[in-house]
Amino acid sequence: MKLQAALDTLTLEECIALMDEVQDYVGVIEVGTPFVIEEGMRPVREFKKRYPKLEVLADVKIMDAGEYEADKCFDAGADIVTVLGVSNDLTVQGVVRSAKKHGKKCMVDMIEVKNLAERTAQLDEMGVDYICVHTAFDVQATGADPLDELKVVNKIVKNAKTAVAGGVKLNTIDDIVAEGAEIIVVGGAICNAKDRAQMAKDMKGRLK
Amino acid sequence: MKLQAALDTLTLEECIALMDEVQDYVGVIEVGTPFVIEEGMRPVREFKKRYPKLEVLADVKIMDAGEYEADKCFDAGADIVTVLGVSNDLTVQGVVRSAKKHGKKCMVDMIEVKNLAERTAQLDEMGVDYICVHTAFDVQATGADPLDELKVVNKIVKNAKTAVAGGVKLNTIDDIVAEGAEIIVVGGAICNAKDRAQMAKDMKGRLK
Repeated sequence: MKLQAALDTLTLEECIALMDEVQDYVGVIEVGTPFVIEEGMRPVREFKKRYPKLEVLADVKIMDAGEYEADKCFDAGADIVTVLGVSNDLTVQGVVRSAKKHGKKCMVDMIEVKNLAERTAQLDEMGVDYICVHTAFDVQATGADPLDELKVVNKIVKNAKTAVAGGVKLNTIDDIVAEGAEIIVVGGAICNAKDRAQMAKDMKGRLK
Repeated sequence: MKLQAALDTLTLEECIALMDEVQDYVGVIEVGTPFVIEEGMRPVREFKKRYPKLEVLADVKIMDAGEYEADKCFDAGADIVTVLGVSNDLTVQGVVRSAKKHGKKCMVDMIEVKNLAERTAQLDEMGVDYICVHTAFDVQATGADPLDELKVVNKIVKNAKTAVAGGVKLNTIDDIVAEGAEIIVVGGAICNAKDRAQMAKDMKGRLK
């Protein structure tokens, strides 16, 4: 089990300051979608250079041109690239192909996937590395929570590992750990903590 | 009716050379998704500065954090921002809010939307500016074509205008023009033409 720190709303300089504080407790640095929209692959290159022991995930949420877009991310140094579960099978297969070619990994973001069990089985069969249940940021205010979806996915996967994202906090992480997931994505809980290093350490301490 | 030039696979410098050739025939410059992945908002800023009379579309295919991500694009100078039709209503509504706040526009990309008629009616009701039928690049090799989907959407929309994307060529544009769409997206047909200015002029000549 490892923590993934989602960097979404900070500048590159602020992210580096944060990562310098929390790098001992984090396994994966996520260059979040808004960050890619603003800066492209620059943060991926910068984090890979500064934190060579950590994995860097490019949260590009690929929806088309799977192999072409994933190639760009892996060429920039990403270790993990995300593709949307709602995308076409051909797109997912392109991302898987790109990942294998680069000796890297792909994660499927299951955000807004309606047929969760059926789609999980299909994706697992396609050889993706991670399947990530994800309560959209825009939906978290409704009280939705990714734990129930994690339970569904954990029951089905045979090859892929699972990940979980969407408002995970210190008081919700124990249930996730008990259910089991290889990667637990944490954003605001660390970024907005008073003592960010301590919060990252506390959350890391809860993992198995 | 206007042409939208999709810039996906060229460097910024190559895109500027292309746009210098075709700018008289194009209404919208699309900063394509792979281009955003590589460069972030830099091409949006650069195109808006160089071609102030043209609209710039940021094809970010928003899937979450609708208002936040759209704000970033509009703040960088985009005139139109894309959101995925498969995203949550709350995400679409966030993008619409951002567009209205900035006096700009949003386009919904209907790629991989399964319930096309039903979803079109919902989106039209939400106040989006454009609904774009889109045959995924990864799916075009199967012979799929966006014309049939355009017919479905055109029958339903009451407020939104329509757009069409996915392998449009000189020999397929007439049927699209006859069916009707406000924006016709053209990528490879222009980018890969021997005489790019002439091809853009010819395609523009087919519009009503």
